[in-house]
Amino acid sequence: MPKYRIWISYDGTDYGGWQVQPNSTSIQGLIEEALETILRQRTPIVGSGRTDAGVHAEAQVAHFSSDIPFELNRLQRSLNALLPPDIRIMKLDQTEPHFHARYSATGKIYHYHLHTANSINPFSRLYSTHFPYPLDLSLIHRARDYLIGTHDFTSFANECTKGSAAKNPIRTLKRLDIVQIDGGIRFEFEADGFLYKMVRNLTGTLLDVATGKIEPESIPAILEAKDRTQAGRAAPPQGLFLMQVHYPVQFSGMASKEAKCVTSPSG
Amino acid sequence: MPKYRIWISYDGTDYGGWQVQPNSTSIQGLIEEALETILRQRTPIVGSGRTDAGVHAEAQVAHFSSDIPFELNRLQRSLNALLPPDIRIMKLDQTEPHFHARYSATGKIYHYHLHTANSINPFSRLYSTHFPYPLDLSLIHRARDYLIGTHDFTSFANECTKGSAAKNPIRTLKRLDIVQIDGGIRFEFEADGFLYKMVRNLTGTLLDVATGKIEPESIPAILEAKDRTQAGRAAPPQGLFLMQVHYPVQFSGMASKEAKCVTSPSG
Repeated sequence: MPKYRIWISYDGTDYGGWQVQPNSTSIQGLIEEALETILRQRTPIVGSGRTDAGVHAEAQVAHFSSDIPFELNRLQRSLNALLPPDIRIMKLDQTEPHFHARYSATGKIYHYHLHTANSINPFSRLYSTHFPYPLDLSLIHRARDYLIGTHDFTSFANECTKGSAAKNPIRTLKRLDIVQIDGGIRFEFEADGFLYKMVRNLTGTLLDVATGKIEPESIPAILEAKDRTQAGRAAPPQGLFLMQVHYPVQFSGMASKEAKCVTSPSG
Repeated sequence: MPKYRIWISYDGTDYGGWQVQPNSTSIQGLIEEALETILRQRTPIVGSGRTDAGVHAEAQVAHFSSDIPFELNRLQRSLNALLPPDIRIMKLDQTEPHFHARYSATGKIYHYHLHTANSINPFSRLYSTHFPYPLDLSLIHRARDYLIGTHDFTSFANECTKGSAAKNPIRTLKRLDIVQIDGGIRFEFEADGFLYKMVRNLTGTLLDVATGKIEPESIPAILEAKDRTQAGRAAPPQGLFLMQVHYPVQFSGMASKEAKCVTSPSG
């Protein structure tokens, strides 16, 4: 059955998160409803991972399979016509049969926006966390050096709602940049993957470090403890953006087309 | 009675506009309510001008007078605590007794944001107008050259709701810049003042020019006609931002303080 991939940008403010859940409207659920309306067939989609209520995405990635024939541009337009304006399908392509939005992902980039000025600009209020306290950036940089690399991040992971923690809590944090932006700062996180609430827990801990509540030098002991209560609180959702999901080169649009010339369809 | 000046930033999405009107929530009305709660006295405010429903402001300016003693920073914090997060008092100072937010203004800057890409990013949807049609910028530049300068702008002015047109429809458009931005373009308008809906009517006309519906060379005749029906339609409100209100130098914060040393309070 042909497999398709979509890139979705959404403002998470008014949603209960990416994933279909009882008693709240989910982004995944609305896209599945729109697909069902257009293709006249129940069409489940699989995202690269969940995002929580209030968290935004510049480029979430999901896949679905369908036997129904359609024209790619036309389906994208139809989906956007049915979806609310705070959810947009930015791109849609056909992908390899063995592509999986979650299991094929090799990395992700998240950004966390902090507004540190006294009064938060109304245009930032839904897309940034207001944190008008003196921040010592040199402390953040020292903590960062302990976090970069391959660690067991259990102390920075919440249990999933179903009570099951990730089977493997080892992740490699490749990059944690602290960027000065208009009115505040932005943390940029890049890793091979993130545990549940890991970015918000890292951000909350970095803010505790920056305000002197946690010493940068205690980060190795916090990691070692493998105990969620040792790290700082989770930062609020509205500052968080899923920016990019990375896949191996054979799943990029270009490579996919070329691959078709040399690989048998069943391969 | 001491006179004060406030700079207000607001997201106009959820409001019926700046001005108090029946059957809608106004930004002016909410600030007056908050002032009355804090100062325990009805305290009318006067803005530099109205903005319509859905129009935003980075820096609207208003004044009020009050006999009640208060500390400036404290009043600003109290107002922001009472106001919804989409309305923020960015600054508050004491000003000259003869300052008037509307009559002292010598100029204003408005920006109009257009998103011209195929799919509008969800984060731009409330702050930009989606206009995914081919635009010929060279036509806009030719039209601009006819609009810059001192003209009777009646053809670009709607009548006010009360049925009274502006007494003097002559305005000087000092600057009309066309700036390329991520995903679209921004028009920047600077004038000594603007008639009712003038920026949106100019923008709608420029879009008609850019798509070939109106010839740039017909702009002088449109101005000459002094007839609203000759120009293009008003562009929608959500792309429009009041960016700055200009006042003579004696009303700037610094000059005001210095002036107090040499002028008698009653002067």
